[in-house]
Amino acid sequence: MLQRLAVLGVGLLGGSVAKAARAHGLAGEIVGIGRDANRLEPALRDGTLDRATTDVAGGVSGADFVVLATPVGAIERLLETAWPALAPEAVVTDVGSTKQAIVNAALRLAASRPRRFVGSHPMAGSEQSGYGVARADLFRGATVIVTPTDASAPPTVKAVTAFWEALGAGRILALDPETHDRLVAAVSHLPHLVACALVDGVERVDPAAFDVAARGFRDTTRIAAADPAVWEEIFLGNRLALGASLREFLRSLAELSRLVETGDGPALRAALARIQQRREALR
Amino acid sequence: MLQRLAVLGVGLLGGSVAKAARAHGLAGEIVGIGRDANRLEPALRDGTLDRATTDVAGGVSGADFVVLATPVGAIERLLETAWPALAPEAVVTDVGSTKQAIVNAALRLAASRPRRFVGSHPMAGSEQSGYGVARADLFRGATVIVTPTDASAPPTVKAVTAFWEALGAGRILALDPETHDRLVAAVSHLPHLVACALVDGVERVDPAAFDVAARGFRDTTRIAAADPAVWEEIFLGNRLALGASLREFLRSLAELSRLVETGDGPALRAALARIQQRREALR
Repeated sequence: MLQRLAVLGVGLLGGSVAKAARAHGLAGEIVGIGRDANRLEPALRDGTLDRATTDVAGGVSGADFVVLATPVGAIERLLETAWPALAPEAVVTDVGSTKQAIVNAALRLAASRPRRFVGSHPMAGSEQSGYGVARADLFRGATVIVTPTDASAPPTVKAVTAFWEALGAGRILALDPETHDRLVAAVSHLPHLVACALVDGVERVDPAAFDVAARGFRDTTRIAAADPAVWEEIFLGNRLALGASLREFLRSLAELSRLVETGDGPALRAALARIQQRREALR
Repeated sequence: MLQRLAVLGVGLLGGSVAKAARAHGLAGEIVGIGRDANRLEPALRDGTLDRATTDVAGGVSGADFVVLATPVGAIERLLETAWPALAPEAVVTDVGSTKQAIVNAALRLAASRPRRFVGSHPMAGSEQSGYGVARADLFRGATVIVTPTDASAPPTVKAVTAFWEALGAGRILALDPETHDRLVAAVSHLPHLVACALVDGVERVDPAAFDVAARGFRDTTRIAAADPAVWEEIFLGNRLALGASLREFLRSLAELSRLVETGDGPALRAALARIQQRREALR
């Protein structure tokens, strides 16, 4: 049980953190911090937040748990703004899709002013954004990656882990920030870039093709409807790992398309069967 | 109302045709034709089929409507086997995902022995296959593409259109076979190849990445779990149009990844916003 939970950024993820904390009775007081007071109104009105403010330092001071839930670029900047106002015992985490840059920013700040930060990345979300689609059960059963470093105190890691478990997470996975960024580039950032290129590629072929798109295309490209501002920051924030994943993807695509072009049926079928098996293991 | 409907290939699509025809009381008798009598048993047992046979000519003779619903390579071969046994008034269609080769095969056969064939492609399916996943409502609300040519008699086109409407289709779209193959390459065959390359690419990066895959990756790659034999034939059968779509996709991907690599945030965000808008228009 927390005394005061502060959430910076009350959109899909931050709003869901606040709603889940409220639903599970996790905090005595929940404070929402945002750039625009009007956009915090709905969360105040529906009782998710006890207090809303646009003042970062004022919002986090006195909180014993702080979650940064803005787009990744803003998380780095907000860490700097919030840091001097954080109570020494406050546990701080974030929900950013990239971790090295954010964790490094926290490490730099902690060098002169030690505070209790461990990064998180809940593997839950939606192509939609904003508080309007936030849900108390967004994290139920989800995998949450936490990214402690050698500098992280075990009680802090434990507190962040316990927080996500209390919000309903199904599994907490600890990865170092570099490994996180590499693996998430492969299964999240690369598929996102590819989905965007698919939509754009079909537009190049013939916009009339959209008219015959069925469930396969819709599912494959669903994430291309996500917020461009959020994904610009993720792509740029993880560009090296994304580039490495992209190269492997292009190798696979070149190999498969070579088998199609040369009409090598048996080898193509064998490759597809191997891929099918791998994909089915994911269910 | 048909007197006798013959379905060649009683898997997901053929089984769903038979089930939907049964549910809508569309045919007096439904005959299922397959290679393996044992695999036709379940459809006989549950009353979907009135009769099951492994004899193609015997199965189609006397039918007033025939649907070929095997993988695309087999459709071409079965057209040849079935053609001499087709009644002159029988209306024949198929459900193949590629249309030029199938329609051309029918045109060649019709040159010496005129019969009433118009190709179809219901834009419905699943990454799963087999009669076990067939559903009477598979075509409900779906788009079905029909591919008449200059040689197609309007009453035949009308009969095929009426058939799909009776099975619940939401929209019937007439395209010439070449246009069909080009558009479907873009929104179905290309996404399938890309989904397969994504699964394979992640395997190359690090199989551990599968362990952190969330809904985004699952949706993007769902179709990679489809039957390798079916997709080998589709890819090879539509390789030229697929190759053309692939080139446009690679252009889009190269452009997006260039913006990421060079860190051109504003241009990247603008491109993502344009793609988001296009994708949202699809909902």
